[in-house]
Order: sequence, then C-alpha cells, then structure tokens
Amino acid sequence: MQGQAQQQAYDRGITIFSPDGRLYQVEYAREAVKRGTASVGVRTSEGVVLAADKRSRSELMEPASVEKLHKIDDHVGIASAGHVADARQLIDFARRQAQVNRLRYGEEMGIETLTKTVTDHIQQYTQIGGARPFGVALIVGGIENGEPRLFETDPSGTPYEWKALSIGANRADVRERLEEGYSDDLTMEDGIELALAALAESGEDDGLEPDGVGLGTIHVDDEQYVDHDAASIEGYLDEFGYLAPEDDGADGDAEGAADE
Amino acid sequence: MQGQAQQQAYDRGITIFSPDGRLYQVEYAREAVKRGTASVGVRTSEGVVLAADKRSRSELMEPASVEKLHKIDDHVGIASAGHVADARQLIDFARRQAQVNRLRYGEEMGIETLTKTVTDHIQQYTQIGGARPFGVALIVGGIENGEPRLFETDPSGTPYEWKALSIGANRADVRERLEEGYSDDLTMEDGIELALAALAESGEDDGLEPDGVGLGTIHVDDEQYVDHDAASIEGYLDEFGYLAPEDDGADGDAEGAADE
Amino acid sequence: MQGQAQQQAYDRGITIFSPDGRLYQVEYAREAVKRGTASVGVRTSEGVVLAADKRSRSELMEPASVEKLHKIDDHVGIASAGHVADARQLIDFARRQAQVNRLRYGEEMGIETLTKTVTDHIQQYTQIGGARPFGVALIVGGIENGEPRLFETDPSGTPYEWKALSIGANRADVRERLEEGYSDDLTMEDGIELALAALAESGEDDGLEPDGVGLGTIHVDDEQYVDHDAASIEGYLDEFGYLAPEDDGADGDAEGAADE
Amino acid sequence: MQGQAQQQAYDRGITIFSPDGRLYQVEYAREAVKRGTASVGVRTSEGVVLAADKRSRSELMEPASVEKLHKIDDHVGIASAGHVADARQLIDFARRQAQVNRLRYGEEMGIETLTKTVTDHIQQYTQIGGARPFGVALIVGGIENGEPRLFETDPSGTPYEWKALSIGANRADVRERLEEGYSDDLTMEDGIELALAALAESGEDDGLEPDGVGLGTIHVDDEQYVDHDAASIEGYLDEFGYLAPEDDGADGDAEGAADE
Amino acid sequence: MQGQAQQQAYDRGITIFSPDGRLYQVEYAREAVKRGTASVGVRTSEGVVLAADKRSRSELMEPASVEKLHKIDDHVGIASAGHVADARQLIDFARRQAQVNRLRYGEEMGIETLTKTVTDHIQQYTQIGGARPFGVALIVGGIENGEPRLFETDPSGTPYEWKALSIGANRADVRERLEEGYSDDLTMEDGIELALAALAESGEDDGLEPDGVGLGTIHVDDEQYVDHDAASIEGYLDEFGYLAPEDDGADGDAEGAADE
Amino acid sequence: MQGQAQQQAYDRGITIFSPDGRLYQVEYAREAVKRGTASVGVRTSEGVVLAADKRSRSELMEPASVEKLHKIDDHVGIASAGHVADARQLIDFARRQAQVNRLRYGEEMGIETLTKTVTDHIQQYTQIGGARPFGVALIVGGIENGEPRLFETDPSGTPYEWKALSIGANRADVRERLEEGYSDDLTMEDGIELALAALAESGEDDGLEPDGVGLGTIHVDDEQYVDHDAASIEGYLDEFGYLAPEDDGADGDAEGAADE
Amino acid sequence: MQGQAQQQAYDRGITIFSPDGRLYQVEYAREAVKRGTASVGVRTSEGVVLAADKRSRSELMEPASVEKLHKIDDHVGIASAGHVADARQLIDFARRQAQVNRLRYGEEMGIETLTKTVTDHIQQYTQIGGARPFGVALIVGGIENGEPRLFETDPSGTPYEWKALSIGANRADVRERLEEGYSDDLTMEDGIELALAALAESGEDDGLEPDGVGLGTIHVDDEQYVDHDAASIEGYLDEFGYLAPEDDGADGDAEGAADE
Repeated sequence: MQGQAQQQAYDRGITIFSPDGRLYQVEYAREAVKRGTASVGVRTSEGVVLAADKRSRSELMEPASVEKLHKIDDHVGIASAGHVADARQLIDFARRQAQVNRLRYGEEMGIETLTKTVTDHIQQYTQIGGARPFGVALIVGGIENGEPRLFETDPSGTPYEWKALSIGANRADVRERLEEGYSDDLTMEDGIELALAALAESGEDDGLEPDGVGLGTIHVDDEQYVDHDAASIEGYLDEFGYLAPEDDGADGDAEGAADE
Repeated sequence: MQGQAQQQAYDRGITIFSPDGRLYQVEYAREAVKRGTASVGVRTSEGVVLAADKRSRSELMEPASVEKLHKIDDHVGIASAGHVADARQLIDFARRQAQVNRLRYGEEMGIETLTKTVTDHIQQYTQIGGARPFGVALIVGGIENGEPRLFETDPSGTPYEWKALSIGANRADVRERLEEGYSDDLTMEDGIELALAALAESGEDDGLEPDGVGLGTIHVDDEQYVDHDAASIEGYLDEFGYLAPEDDGADGDAEGAADE
Repeated sequence: MQGQAQQQAYDRGITIFSPDGRLYQVEYAREAVKRGTASVGVRTSEGVVLAADKRSRSELMEPASVEKLHKIDDHVGIASAGHVADARQLIDFARRQAQVNRLRYGEEMGIETLTKTVTDHIQQYTQIGGARPFGVALIVGGIENGEPRLFETDPSGTPYEWKALSIGANRADVRERLEEGYSDDLTMEDGIELALAALAESGEDDGLEPDGVGLGTIHVDDEQYVDHDAASIEGYLDEFGYLAPEDDGADGDAEGAADE
Repeated sequence: MQGQAQQQAYDRGITIFSPDGRLYQVEYAREAVKRGTASVGVRTSEGVVLAADKRSRSELMEPASVEKLHKIDDHVGIASAGHVADARQLIDFARRQAQVNRLRYGEEMGIETLTKTVTDHIQQYTQIGGARPFGVALIVGGIENGEPRLFETDPSGTPYEWKALSIGANRADVRERLEEGYSDDLTMEDGIELALAALAESGEDDGLEPDGVGLGTIHVDDEQYVDHDAASIEGYLDEFGYLAPEDDGADGDAEGAADE
Repeated sequence: MQGQAQQQAYDRGITIFSPDGRLYQVEYAREAVKRGTASVGVRTSEGVVLAADKRSRSELMEPASVEKLHKIDDHVGIASAGHVADARQLIDFARRQAQVNRLRYGEEMGIETLTKTVTDHIQQYTQIGGARPFGVALIVGGIENGEPRLFETDPSGTPYEWKALSIGANRADVRERLEEGYSDDLTMEDGIELALAALAESGEDDGLEPDGVGLGTIHVDDEQYVDHDAASIEGYLDEFGYLAPEDDGADGDAEGAADE
Repeated sequence: MQGQAQQQAYDRGITIFSPDGRLYQVEYAREAVKRGTASVGVRTSEGVVLAADKRSRSELMEPASVEKLHKIDDHVGIASAGHVADARQLIDFARRQAQVNRLRYGEEMGIETLTKTVTDHIQQYTQIGGARPFGVALIVGGIENGEPRLFETDPSGTPYEWKALSIGANRADVRERLEEGYSDDLTMEDGIELALAALAESGEDDGLEPDGVGLGTIHVDDEQYVDHDAASIEGYLDEFGYLAPEDDGADGDAEGAADE
Repeated sequence: MQGQAQQQAYDRGITIFSPDGRLYQVEYAREAVKRGTASVGVRTSEGVVLAADKRSRSELMEPASVEKLHKIDDHVGIASAGHVADARQLIDFARRQAQVNRLRYGEEMGIETLTKTVTDHIQQYTQIGGARPFGVALIVGGIENGEPRLFETDPSGTPYEWKALSIGANRADVRERLEEGYSDDLTMEDGIELALAALAESGEDDGLEPDGVGLGTIHVDDEQYVDHDAASIEGYLDEFGYLAPEDDGADGDAEGAADE
C-alpha cells in the first residue's frame, strides 16, 4: 500500500501502472460508480430482473429523464450506475452492436457476446492514451438460448457473470441483502421482491417511492424487455412492504448519492 | 472531500478522474455556467416558456446582441447560460442537427432526440483529450407530438427533463421560486409570470427592465417559436409587477454576474 | 477570487477552466488587447465611423505601415487593437469569407454574419488544444440592408453589437467619453467628432497628430468604405480642436501603449 | 539500486529507461500480474496441463465467468494471470492469429510461433508511446508436431519455454513445489496432480474447491484442448487429497489475491 | 511588470500568453535578434540601401560565407539579423514566393506583398504548437512600381514599413544615428554614407573593414539588386571616413555580438 | 560532470541532450545492456565465433528458450545482450532486411551493410520522439566475400567492427581476457576456446555448464551458420577445461545478471 | 548570463528560446560535438585536405570502423565530429542528395549547394518539435568548378565557409595552430602537414599513430576523393615528425575524448 503523496504521482495524465501494479485512473472511475445511486440485477428461474434507484434531485425534474434502465434490444436490457453521460455512450454503443448483429447474422446477439464487446470497448480507454476511462458500471441482463443471463461491466473493462448483483452506492450492504435472499429457484416475482429489497437497502430513506424506482424484466417465455410503469412499481412496493410512508421525503429527492 | 492542494492535482491537462471519482474540469465548467446570468424554462399545459436575463454591460451595447435565446427550428428554442462563445458552438450544432433531420427524414426533430444529440457531443469533450469541456448549460424547449418538452444539458453532457428549471446565476434561489409557483395546469400566461418571477429572483436589482429580458414561447397550437419584443415584455413585466422603477439602474447594466 | 500562486496553475498549456470557471489564457489574451493602442467605432444615423490611434514608434517608420484600419469589402471595414500579427490573420480570414460569400451567393456578406464567422473561428482557438487564443479584438463596421452596423469580437470569440465602442488602451475612460457624447441621431460628422474625442481620451498627449490617426467611414448612401488621408484627418482634428500643438510630441511617437 | 524518491522520476508518462537500465512501467505491470490469482502449467510426456485458481469474489458470481483458462484453437490453450481486461485483449489477439494462420497456410499454428507473435505485440506497448504495457502474463500450452510445448509471456514481451511454471500470486512458493515434483516422465495424470498441488500452494486456504479451480489439458494423442468440468475437477481433487473440507470457506470466496 | 520567478512560468512549451498579455517566446526570439550583428536599411530618393555587419569569428573563415545580405529577386534584397539558420529558412521561403509569383502572374512580386507573405508565415510559428518562433528579423528592400520600399519583419510576424532602420545589435544607438542623418531627399550615395555610419555605430571598433561589411543597393533606374564587392565597399569606407585603421583589429574578428 | 539532481532533469520524456552533450536515455539503455548476461564474438582466420551465456533462471525453463544466439541468414548470426524483447525486434528487423536483399539483388547481404541498416534503425529511436531507445546490444558476425567480419551495434545506433568483443555483464573483465588471448592467426578452434574463456570470465561461477552456453560458428569454407548443440559444447568445455564441476550449481541457474 | 537553476528551465522538451535568446538544446548538441575527437580541414591551392583523429577505444576494434571520413561523391568528402550515429544520418542524407543531383541534372552537385541542403535539414530539427537536434558537426570539402571549397555545418544548421578549420575536441588550440600555419599558397603537401600538425595539437599524446589517423584529399586536377591508407599516413607522419614513439600508447587507445 502506498502513502498519499506517492499515490498522487500515479493518477495523472494517461492511465499507467503504479509501483504496486494498480491503474489509479481505473480505480478512481470505480469511485465515480460508487457515487452513483444503486442499480440491481437478479437472475431468476423465470427471467431477469433489473431495478434502479432513480430518485431525482428535484420534484420539478421529470422522473423519466433519470436514465438508469435502458432497453438495448427486445431480449436485453441494461441498468447503469455512475457518470450518466458516460453511460449514454456505452448504451449507444451496445445498441449499435446489437443492431449490427441482427443485420449481419439475422439473429439476436448473445448476452455474453454483447457484454464482452462492450468491455473490450471499455478496456481500450484504459490502455490507449488520449482519453480517460469510462466512469460507469453496467448490469447487462437478457435471455440467451432460453436461459436468463446477467453480466456486469466495470470501468476496467472486465466482464463478470452473476446470479444477482448491485452496482453503485452502498454495494457491500446491498450484496449482503442479495446473498441472504438469493436462491436458484426464485420466481420472477421473488426476483422482483429481492431486487426491491436490495434497492431499499441502498438508500437511507424508509422505503421507496414509485417515481424514484425503475424496474425492468425479461421473461424467458416471451424474451421481451418490459419497462414497468409507476403504477406497476407502486403495486410491487405495496405488496412487498417497501412503499415509503406518505409524509416522509414526499418529493422523493435524493439527498445523498446521485448520478451526475 | 479533498483539500485545496490535492484538488489542484486533478484539474489540469485533459479531463481525468480525481481519487473520489470526480471530473474537475467538468465541475469548473459548471462554475463557468454559474458565472453567467440566469435563464429560465417553464413547461405549461399550453406550451413552453423560455426567459433569460440579458442585461448588457453598457447602454451603448445593442440589447439584441446579448445572445441568450436562440430559435433552433420552428418548434424548438434554446436558452443558454455561461460562456457565450461556447454556447454559440452548441447552438450552431443543434441547428445543423435539426436541419439535417428535416432533410433526411422530412420531419421535425424530436426535442428529446435533439437534446441527446447535443449532450453526446458535449460528452466527447469531457472524455477525449485535446480540448476542454463546454462551459455552458442549455435549456432546450419545444413541442414534440403536440406535447411541450423541456430539457437541460449540462457541461458533463447529461440530459435531464424538467417541468421548470433555471440555469446560471443564483440557481438555488431561483429553483425555490419555481418550485413554489409551479403546478401542472399552468397556462402559458401563468408560465410567463412564473418565468419572469424566477428571473427577477436571480438578479439583485428591484425588478426587470424590458431591454434586459429575453422571452421566447412555443405554443402547442401552432408549434412556432415566438421571440417576444421589448414592448411585449414590458407589457408582461408591468402586468405582473416586475417592471423596474424608472430611476433605478436606468441603463440596465449588469454589475454582478454577466456572461462572458 | 484566487490567490496569485493558485492562479498560475490554470494558465499554462492548453486553455482550460480554473476552479472558478474562468479561462485564463483568454483573459491574458484580453490583456494583450489592452496593451494595444485604442481603436474606436461609432454608429451614426448616416453610417459608421472607425478611428484608430496609429502613432508609430519612430519618425522613421511609415505611418501607413501601422495597420489598425482595414477595408474588408466595399461595404465593411475593421479596426483592430492588440497583437498586430494576430490581427492580420483574422483580417485575412474576414476578407476571404467576404470574397467567398460574394462568389457563392452573388451578394455582399452581412455584417453580423461576417462577425459571427470570425468569432466562431476565434472560439476554436480557445477550446481545441495545440494553439493559443488570438490576442486581438476587432471592431467590425459596415452597412447591411441600408443600416449601419457595428460589432466587436473579443479573444473569447463572443460577438457583441454596439452603438459606439472602443477597444485597446484605456477602455474605461474612452467608454465614458463615448457614453457622454452618444445619441441616436448623430450625423456622420458628429460621429467623426465623437470618435476623435474618444481617441484623444485614450492617449496621454495633448491632442492628436494627423499622421498618428486612422479614420475610416462607410456612408449608408454609397456603402463604400472610405479611408481618410492625413489631410482630411488634419482638417477634422483642426475643426474639432483635437489637433496636437506643434511643439509637443512633434514626431508623434507613442511612448506608452503600442501594438506589438 | 535507487531510492524511493528517485524511482518515482522514471515511472511516469511513456515507458522509458531508468538510470540503472530498467523499465519501471514494465516492472509495475509485473506487479499487476503478481496481484492476480495463480495459474499453473505442466508439460508431461503425454501432453500439457493448464490449471488456474479461479475463486470468485462472491457466491453470487458465476464461476464460469472468472476467465483464467481460454481455448485458443483445437490444439492450444492459454492460462492467464493479472489484469483480466488486458488478458482478454491478448487472448483475442492470439485467437485471431491462430485463425489467420489456418486460413492462410491451411494448417495449425505452431505453439512457439503463436507465442512469439503475441510477445512481439506486447513489446510494442513497452517501446512506442501513447499506451501502457499489458498488465498480464500468459501460459501458452499446446501440441506442436506431436510434442507438448509450454510457453510463458510476460509484460516485457519476452517468450520463455518451460517444463512447468506458474504465474500470478506466490510465484516463488509455487515454483518450489513444481521443481520438487517435476520429472520428465510424468504422465498426464501425474501432471494434473502436480498442477493442483502447485495451485493449492498458491492460496492460503486448506485445499481447493471444484468451483474455484480451472483445469485444461491437451493430450498428444488427439491434440484437442479439454476444458474439465467441476465434477471432473472434484474427482481429481478428491483423488489427490486437495479437496477443501466442507465447513471451511464454504463459498469459495477469495479473500486474498484476486484478478481485477 | 512580472518578477523573475513568475516570468519563468510563461516561457516554456508552446507559445502562450502571460498574465500581462505578452508572448514570452516571441520576446525571447527578439533577444536572439539582438544577439546578432547589425543590419541597416535606408530608403533614398534613388533607391534602397542595405548594409550589414558581417565580421567573421576568425580570419580563416571566408567572409563571403557570413550570410547577412541576400538577393531574393532582381528587384528585391533582404538583410537579416539573428539566428542564421532560421534566416536561411525565411530567405528560401521568400525566394520561392517571389518565383511562384513570377510564374503565376508573369510579373515581379510587390515588396509589401512579399513582406506580408513572409510575416504571415512567421506568425503561424507563434500561434500553432509544435514549433518555436523564428529567431530572426529581416529588412526587406526593393523597388515596387518605380518606388523604393523598405520593410521590417520581426519574430512576432508583424510587418512595418520604414524610411530607414536597423535590426540586431545596439538598435537604439543606431536608430538615433539614422534619425539624425535621415532626410527624404537623400541620394543613393547619401544613403550608403548613412548606412555605413549607422553600421559603424553598431560596433565597438574604430571604423569598419571592407571584408567585415556587406552592402547591397537597388536603384530605381534599373531595379537590379547590386551586391557590392570588397573593393567597392573599401572605396565607400575610405571616402566617408569609416575605414578602420590598419593596426586595429587587423583580422576583423568580431569579439562582441555575432550571429550564430 | 553533473550532480545527481541535475542529471535527473535530462533523462525524462523524449531523448534530449544534457548540458554536457550527453543523451541520458541512450546511456541508460546501455545500462540495460550491462544488466544482461554476456555474449562474446571472436573473429578468427577461419571464420567467426559467437558465444553467449544463456543460463536460465530455473531448471524448469527450457535452455533453448533463452534466446541469445540467432541465425539471421545462412552466412550470418547475431548474439545479443540486454532487454530480450527489444532484441527480438532487432533480430526480426535484421532477418527481414537479409531476406529482402536476397529477393531484390539475388545475393547475400553484406555483413557491414546489414549492420548499418540495423544501426540506422536504432538511431531513429534515439532522435525522433514517441518511443524509447532499444535496450540491447548486438554482435553481428558472418562471412562477406570470403572474409570473416564481426560487428557491434550499441543503443546509440553506432556500428563498430571488432576482432573480438563482448557485450553485456562484466564487459571490462571480459575484454581484458579477449585482449590477452587474441592474435590474428587464431584457428576456429582457438577462437572457440577464447570465446568460452571470455564467457567463463563474465560469470561468477566456477566453469560453465553445457546447457548454460550458446555457441555459433560460421566457417569461411562453407559460409554456413552452425548452432552447436549441448553435446558439442560439452566437448569443447571439457577439452578446454571450462566445464563446471558436477556438484557446483548443478541446475545452472543464474543468480546474478540475467536478461529480462 | 543565467544562473544554473534558471538555465535548467530552458533546456527540456522541444527546442525553445531562453530569455536571452539562446537555444539550449542546440548549445548542448555543440557540447556533444566537443566531446568527439577532432577532425580538421585545410583548403590549399591544389585541393582540399581532410584529416581526423580516429583512435579507437581498444586494440581489438578495427580502425576502419571508426568512421570519421566519408566519401560522399567522387569530388567531395566529409569529416565529422560528435555523435557517430547522428553523423551517419547526415552522411547518408548528403550522399542521397549528391546522387539525386547527378540523376536529375546530369552533373556533380556543387559543394556549397550540398552543404546548404544539409544545413537546412539540420535546422528543421532545431525548430520543429518531436525530435532533438543532431549532435554532430561536419566538414564538407570538395572541388566546385575547379576550385577547392571547404565548409562547416554546426548543430544549429548554419553553413560557414573556411580556409582551414577544425571541429571536435580542443577546437581553440587547434584553430590557433591552423591560423599560425595557414597561407593562401599552400600546396597539397603543405596542407597535409598543417592538418596533421593541427590534429596532433588536438590530442594529449606525443605524436600520432597511423592507425589512429584518417586522411582524405581531393585534388583540383582529378577531382577525385582519395582515402589514404595507413602506409601513406605513416609516411606523412614520419616525414613531418608527428609519428608517435613506439613505446608510447602502443595500442593507440584514446583515453580522453572519444566519439560515442
């Protein structure tokens, strides 16, 4: 481990190795991810659940404009955490790749292939000079050959496959919640409950507000990404007991972590 | 949070991450926005209102040459705050995109699409080396499919949709004023009143002078951007009680914040 | 406001934002403008007046070689202040733009369009790396659709329209003189008097010498840029009482500010 | 040998020589390799064995997504240690080279040729500016002309041929274990035992868990890379006595070194 | 005015503005000019005179190889002072421009046009990164439309027209001498006398040696650049009383300023 | 001579001159050569001898993979010392040049021409920015027009021709040994003895092991590069008394200098 | 004059001006020349003499491989001093230019033209970024139109013509010797004697050894560059009394200055 002064020497200019073999710009980009509100992914026996904390900074902001969940193709969605403008670049990149795959091969792009195409793109920004790394992590979820798949991309450009994971704020607490609640035979509804529970864990408020939550699911039966509306979300929150009390944080404004 | 000396290390050369995951050049560009006079946007049930503080530095300067409101296409206008020369680049970029869209698809460009095309352009200047970020924020307002839409672009390249917002000087005070006065069923005239009230909040003088205010509206009925002249503005100011007294700041010169 | 040591950190290398949102290289380029001798522009009801302090550093220098006034096209002239070699680049750029416009559209280029083409060019040098900003300000004056127009370009690349303005040395004093003397119904001759009065205000000597003054006018009647010769200028100076006494500063050498 | 302060001077920007003739960026990249979990290769008389520590950071992570072993072509596999995203780039590069060789010459690429093509690629990143070295080491194993071959690539771009080797964490201890157990007449099963023994040496836990181990073999008889599944691995671990006790580290999470 | 330490901060890397609006690299290039031996130009009613101090560093050096005077075209010559190798680049540039002009337009290039083409070239090296400014000043003299013209180019890229001027060592003293002796009705012979007098002023020795002086003239009658030989120069020096005594500085070596 | 602190100032970034006219990056690259194990070349009346210390770091490493001797073409071989990955680049470059020469001119490339083509390539890396120098020295030996030739290339890109030389560790001691033993009428066998004696001098152990030595010869009679195998080498070592005792350093591992 | 610390500020990165108008990188390159052994040129009435100190560092080095004298074309030779690898680049450049001239114009290239083509090439490396200056000086000697010509190129890219000169070590002492012995009516043999005398002056030993001296002559009669062999040189050294005594420095090794 390095002292403060020495560390400083390795985190300027292009991304280079520190004496202990670390890439500080990549690690700082991970900090940018932690500064973002949480997103959660859960793989169930029936499909994939993506959920995101999308509380806005003001009641005047349109909840829909807080972009945390993105449909990439019919069969695949992505949840992001971290630097919003960077996320948009990767989302666009993923969409173009999915389209090109459909055009070129006449079939849907595999979730793993899509993820790795994105991580290879991310890696280039950590090795070649003239740009900084992407300050964003993604959860890529979808159906491939009838099976639900769930991947993570981090700022280093490494792909990981998960059964359930979170990215963004309070990752350690949320992971603990996920590990407690996960089992291989979750139904889609179980998965939604677990995802919302994890999301509630990531924030500081009592419960969640429908407008401050994003929820997307892809079922193995129809392989269609479904973006749930506020009514549907409110139903789930109410059903599972995560609905915030009326008088508390009435405007749903995030005071703590917020994607920038 | 970092100390002063340490912070310095992360805000030079190309835009890179600080140890806590921040992009200082982007944050400093946000300061450039705060140094600019305020612009305000209000979405009403009847259309969109854009208003701007365009007080000039001298009575000899032509009020019309203080560029804060810009017609982009028939159905969309943009208000800016911050570094004026940078704003002009983004305005030109937005106009070209709108034109190209008309030529290519034979129809008007959507407000959200236009905004995101602009923010993607902005983002590139925060990640790729060899240039600095844009020191400007924009309010993009217009009609899309008969609905009024109102977006913000910030120096990080993030798009946000708002019901009402301000950019530039004294943003916190102005937002408070907007939150107090906003409701979903505002008429266009209500919106103009709220926008002027917010603008008056942003300055230090008593009231506003017609020459020092820019006002643009786009009504859902005709989807035409209207740039209001000084007489029209004086009427509104008088009607709503924001007209500056004759003997105060007679030349309308801004002593405080001014776009540069 | 920043201390001296901190400020230094933001004014090297390419043009980047300081923590308070300023672009120091642009501000330093403005200092280069202030180091130049003054130029003045006055818009009258009959046309535009451009005047410039063009005192040379030695009696052996040809007065005509001190370039402060430039004919750009029949209907438009430019006065400059600041770094002379930089000014030449922008003047050449403006001339080429005006010529191209004539060739392409078969008509004169508008004064506002011309100005903004120049300021967009200037802005690029403040955002893209690999070059420094232009250390020069310009007054662009001309006739557009029968109306006199008068614009300023500054080193940030911002265009402003003025009724009357000065650039270069002692700007504050000169502006005060212009504000005192300006009214909307000035004749061309009134405008020349005001311009010469402002110019006299900018220097430290008693009065002006014909060889040390440049004077250009464009009348709405013929829309022709007229470069006044020393005899004409001497006439005006004599008429308005700004002619320097014979024994004072007989060689017209500038001891103070001088464009370099 | 250099002091701490002096060393700092030679490890920034592009890869350059230090006064004692060292390339610090390359040496720091070697540290990145040491931070990774171990991979092992053993050449036996019957073929090549590749094994890797692929313990994941969480029980929720899919073991298969921890990429340490990669099939490159029918007759060749690669085990990696270090920066995972960098490894992916080299793996992709190796696969493309192997494919191109098949297409161009109609035959399998030789193991030595493949290794050297990869190391030449790595070397370029240590000499030409504008990028950092690769933070990864590879073990390239395969069959060439009926003979098992085993190579190492390091971050400097040097190829070495080995009888048995490890890369990644605790290299010195693991090498000692390999040297003790190696002989030229090992059978494939002997090789697997030695590889697992070495891998067990690299970690801190008692024994190995099937999910936390990767095992690949290429037999001289069929020249086919075989990626062993968890059941097969569990069999070997049980057979050779390296199976972790049930109650110890039940979730196989790596607490120590982990590839990032 | 800046202190020593602060000044240092603005004179490295590419040419940028200092806080007081100066371009230090350009000012340092001017110092390179001052380090060179003097060159003089005098415009007379009959033509242009160029003279240069070309004392060599050793009696073994060929006087002709000290390049201070250069024929550019039949009707134009250039005298230089400063960095010799830089001067050669500009001289070559000027010659190519003059040739191209002849080829393209079938006529001689105007002296002013030629000068400004050269200064525009010089300016580029002060604004665009990747090169340093030219460390040389030029006196461009020639006949244009039957009139003698005399220009200066400095390291900033500014063109000036003069009646008489010097560049290089001891400029202030030499200018004084030129101002004393100049009048508009000088004959060519008067001009030669004045040029030699000025040159004698620039050095520290008593008088000038024929081998240490360069003399070029262009008469309005034939518009032909004449490079005077040592005999001709000795005649003038003798006639005007500037011939150095035999026993003083017999080898004509310059001890003080010398172009490098 | 410069102090420690001052020296530091001249050895970063691109290769530039120090105040005393040295190129530190080149000198540091020479240090990289000294860090490598020794290689030796001897020119005899019957041909050229190349020998190299190729002790490996571990008994598990294949001796053949320690690349110190390289056949370039039938009639020419190269021995290297220093940074192994850099050596590979130059070896490849030399091989391509030799092939191209055969194809283009239908004959073998001359040893001197080949050497100078390589040194010109090396020099470019010491003068042009964007890369570091090569950290390797080469001994190029071969037959040209029936005559044995022996050249050295160093990191500055200078070619030298030698009768006998060494590169790498302990150069001074080895040269002394070579000077003692050299005479112009050495037979090939004499040359081999001298080369092995010199090699033994370079290490710290008692004697040499066959596996730790590389030996290549090119005889003037057949002009064929011969790479001697371990048996042949053992014979020579035994014959000349340089064979290491059995119980000493049985595994031939280099403890001291080793190419990296 | 600048202090030590201040000087440091102007000698890094690309070649830029110091506050007193100097180019330190060029001056340091001159130091590299001084570190080289001396070369001498003498122009006689019968032709040109080039001589060089080419003592090698070891008796095992081939004297012929110390490259100080180079035949460029039949009628022109070059002697160099300084960085050997840089010299080779300029020699190659000069040879290509001479060949191209013959091919294009069917005649020999003039000595002055050749020299200036080389110096223009050198100058580019002192003004354009991305490379360092050449650390070498050249003496270019040859016959042009039946006349012997002798030029120098220095690291700034300035061409000088000389009657006699030296470059490299101890230049001041050698010049003194040349000035004492030079006269315009030297025969070729006189010139050889003077050149050898000057060379002897440059070293510290008593006398010169044939192997340590290079001698080239070009006679006006045949205009053919003659490279004298050791026997011829020994004859001259013996004849003129500069032959080193047998027992002194028997191996001719240079202990002091040596080209690198």
